[in-house]
Amino acid sequence: MNQATEVLAANQEFYRAFATPDLAAMDGLWAVDVPVTCVHPGWDALNSRDQVMESWRAILSGSPPPIRCQDEEVFVHGETAYVICHEVIDDNRLVAINMFVRREQRWLMVHHQASPMAVRAARRPANPAPPRRLH
Amino acid sequence: MNQATEVLAANQEFYRAFATPDLAAMDGLWAVDVPVTCVHPGWDALNSRDQVMESWRAILSGSPPPIRCQDEEVFVHGETAYVICHEVIDDNRLVAINMFVRREQRWLMVHHQASPMAVRAARRPANPAPPRRLH
Repeated sequence: MNQATEVLAANQEFYRAFATPDLAAMDGLWAVDVPVTCVHPGWDALNSRDQVMESWRAILSGSPPPIRCQDEEVFVHGETAYVICHEVIDDNRLVAINMFVRREQRWLMVHHQASPMAVRAARRPANPAPPRRLH
Repeated sequence: MNQATEVLAANQEFYRAFATPDLAAMDGLWAVDVPVTCVHPGWDALNSRDQVMESWRAILSGSPPPIRCQDEEVFVHGETAYVICHEVIDDNRLVAINMFVRREQRWLMVHHQASPMAVRAARRPANPAPPRRLH
């Protein structure tokens, strides 16, 4: 398996743990030897492993959304990699980044950030219009 | 200058180029030898340097927002690093990730993603409530 395929598999495992839900698997996906950060849609950043796992515990112990991941693109930079993908939840579409670091043949998460899209448009319009007031 | 300080300086230069606006400086901040990606608030992901720079040209040639960067935290993973920070635009507060790769003593951007915050709350509430319908 090449590195991009390994990273894609780790990303798929993240969404499997999210959708199942599987809190133990989610916990095992996140790095333990370096700081981790997480930005859920609309939330401020969480910047400790305790905060990040507490957020997943809250989300996965409730009624986790029927989330699906689509349109993954993998970018590998040595021992660090990230995936840009779409998260589809009912009629909503978000764009997410999931960042990983390589540790002993595994890719472990260090950052997740999902951003709501203002328009449920086709992927990457040729001339996207900037939302007003924000950049 | 240690690596975290160098990354922080690159992040500050990004917001200087954004607010000035300084399109030439913005162009020079982004990597050219690896793919770059960018998620403006509410937009889909842009996944080519041409698309990313076209978006900055559109944003900076209009009336760029009075953006300020606060609360930066730097995370270095070898030759890759990222900054989590707040973007303050008038009364709006966004949480952003800016990712960099090291090239010949410089840190160059490979990803920018800014996510609107649902609540203009103090940084990192102890028990953030997940927005409904999304995670």
